[in-house]
Amino acid sequence: MPPAPLITLLTDFGSSDHFVAAMKGVIAAICPEARIVDITHEIAPYAILEGAWTLAEAAPCFPPGTIHIAVVDPGVGTARRPIAISANGQFFIGPDNGLLALATSAGAPLHAVEITRTDLFRHPVSSTFHGRDIFAPVAASFARGLAFSTLGQPVDSWRQLPEAIPVPNPDGSWQGIIVKVDRFGNLITNLPASIPTPWCLEGPGFTIRACSTTYENAPEGEPVLIAGSARTIEIFINKGSAMSKLRVTAGAPVIVRQCK
Amino acid sequence: MPPAPLITLLTDFGSSDHFVAAMKGVIAAICPEARIVDITHEIAPYAILEGAWTLAEAAPCFPPGTIHIAVVDPGVGTARRPIAISANGQFFIGPDNGLLALATSAGAPLHAVEITRTDLFRHPVSSTFHGRDIFAPVAASFARGLAFSTLGQPVDSWRQLPEAIPVPNPDGSWQGIIVKVDRFGNLITNLPASIPTPWCLEGPGFTIRACSTTYENAPEGEPVLIAGSARTIEIFINKGSAMSKLRVTAGAPVIVRQCK
Amino acid sequence: MPPAPLITLLTDFGSSDHFVAAMKGVIAAICPEARIVDITHEIAPYAILEGAWTLAEAAPCFPPGTIHIAVVDPGVGTARRPIAISANGQFFIGPDNGLLALATSAGAPLHAVEITRTDLFRHPVSSTFHGRDIFAPVAASFARGLAFSTLGQPVDSWRQLPEAIPVPNPDGSWQGIIVKVDRFGNLITNLPASIPTPWCLEGPGFTIRACSTTYENAPEGEPVLIAGSARTIEIFINKGSAMSKLRVTAGAPVIVRQCK
Repeated sequence: MPPAPLITLLTDFGSSDHFVAAMKGVIAAICPEARIVDITHEIAPYAILEGAWTLAEAAPCFPPGTIHIAVVDPGVGTARRPIAISANGQFFIGPDNGLLALATSAGAPLHAVEITRTDLFRHPVSSTFHGRDIFAPVAASFARGLAFSTLGQPVDSWRQLPEAIPVPNPDGSWQGIIVKVDRFGNLITNLPASIPTPWCLEGPGFTIRACSTTYENAPEGEPVLIAGSARTIEIFINKGSAMSKLRVTAGAPVIVRQCK
Repeated sequence: MPPAPLITLLTDFGSSDHFVAAMKGVIAAICPEARIVDITHEIAPYAILEGAWTLAEAAPCFPPGTIHIAVVDPGVGTARRPIAISANGQFFIGPDNGLLALATSAGAPLHAVEITRTDLFRHPVSSTFHGRDIFAPVAASFARGLAFSTLGQPVDSWRQLPEAIPVPNPDGSWQGIIVKVDRFGNLITNLPASIPTPWCLEGPGFTIRACSTTYENAPEGEPVLIAGSARTIEIFINKGSAMSKLRVTAGAPVIVRQCK
Repeated sequence: MPPAPLITLLTDFGSSDHFVAAMKGVIAAICPEARIVDITHEIAPYAILEGAWTLAEAAPCFPPGTIHIAVVDPGVGTARRPIAISANGQFFIGPDNGLLALATSAGAPLHAVEITRTDLFRHPVSSTFHGRDIFAPVAASFARGLAFSTLGQPVDSWRQLPEAIPVPNPDGSWQGIIVKVDRFGNLITNLPASIPTPWCLEGPGFTIRACSTTYENAPEGEPVLIAGSARTIEIFINKGSAMSKLRVTAGAPVIVRQCK
């Protein structure tokens, strides 16, 4: 017997409302055997880049066939398209606003459809909660066995997030951004840890040269660089918060170069 | 093979303690095959109205037969009764303090029992944690197949929440309240969106006439009315927080009338 | 058919990042049939004592055979050992830094191994995220049926938390600490509620003699003692926060004696 379908959820809905549970109820009603795993619901409201990064970090840990529903959707109810993308042996369902861009940017084959199967929706479809009325029921119907290609019309491209892609400069340095501040106040950059060391990282008002291979072996109180679990460069303070110390947040620009 | 039993949990226990996990462990020990879905555990402490509203919004998304456990229970250990209610093809288990009122106010048939089957409890029963010691084990035993009527003594009525019910005024306006502030700072009222438009909504210190059918198409910075996903009138600010701007919270009175 | 394996997770990872989901994805890829239950991910960052207490409170509610993964791990990537402990019919997997001490301090038989099966790890193993790369895959492999003794080399002892153990004084009083502040601002001590009443409890700047058997029957506004659901003495304020009123946090020393 094959494993039951596995559906993940990533949203900016928070955890104090019924929104996430409504989606889970809809899924359970359509595909009772589906296993549901929360990636997170604490993406900052409307923070598409943060959502896209988090989804891209989580997805590769899941097995082939996993169906990821992602909803960070300030444009809900407007003309932005609902889409489904097949990439890397998994499936991604959500609004076409860049949220799915980073998780689906690598790997092949890639197939995508604009979701047009209104018969799968939960009616009446609200204009404010497509997670419950469109994405959850479509994903659950797909989990039950509908063919991917029947979910809608093929599309050739979908919204990308160029601001999330690090850029090499002619002088050998790399230009990137802080893509996320994690629970510990660590500042996660999109700069690949494969850039040759020793690193010299500049951000708004600070320059960091200290580097460590573990959190605990770094001196306390000072920001230090490390190759993070996302394989990008991360700024941390041992038992402290780099965010609080450096006063930067997601989106801040950073440059890294090899120190002389 | 029928789907495994589905049990939901709604509490004000928060997510930083072991309380919710204790309930899940008790359920897993009695009914390992049960699927458990969290509605939320972030109901404000002791906020029965908020819990009742959230439960009533979530429950209809779940399939028939779902067993909902709800615990917002400032009176735990006192004479307030533990009850179980069969309504709308689902089951609701919790303290008889109004928490179950809104989810069970519509639909038929309705049956209710005061839970008196102490042999199903987890012993010794604490006076401070009936979620673990009474509600979870009773729900899990019921999920395993006990007949509803055997859970206790039939009761004819249970605690209602009249303050949650909107009231029509003689002049055609409706009197209601803010029942919940959601994650985005949207103010959810209990005023039905079926009240004829255009709306004119008054609350403490503000009057709102602007209306939109989507969040994103509204002007930014100003409070706007919308028919929310609960099919009641909702006050929002596009990419902002209506709660912060208007400085009202759950419980605040609101009146809506058709504008001239 | 025996129930599917049951795995719990307790961490200080918070709920806004992909860290917990990454662990769940790894588990699902190795042992799709495992049921996963979150104990909590809101342990304060690096708060080993709080994590140890919470795990010890939750674990006994779970059925025999449950596999608990706990990760509060400021020393990740350093020489601290990854361990697995068999205790009380359950299994505990995490860093050997005291986090597993309280859940495994009672009961027999006790067996423990230092986890050395690198072939079970997720490669390349990062130096910052052993939850994903070591603990989750080892637990999932064990859940699939590996023998406990094959996980590594037997060890005779593991890190204890002596500061969490209450100490009887020669005068009959007991010396303890606040081990946790719960969601309601209740101050949970490690002082056994079996100490003879009436209690007189002293903490930093306060003495409390009032006692109640329920929260609601206590006078409002004043700190009161109660036998908590953990069967230790707890300080609460009816519908208020004892933490806010008394201005103490986890770790604060407390003494209880029988009042004259």
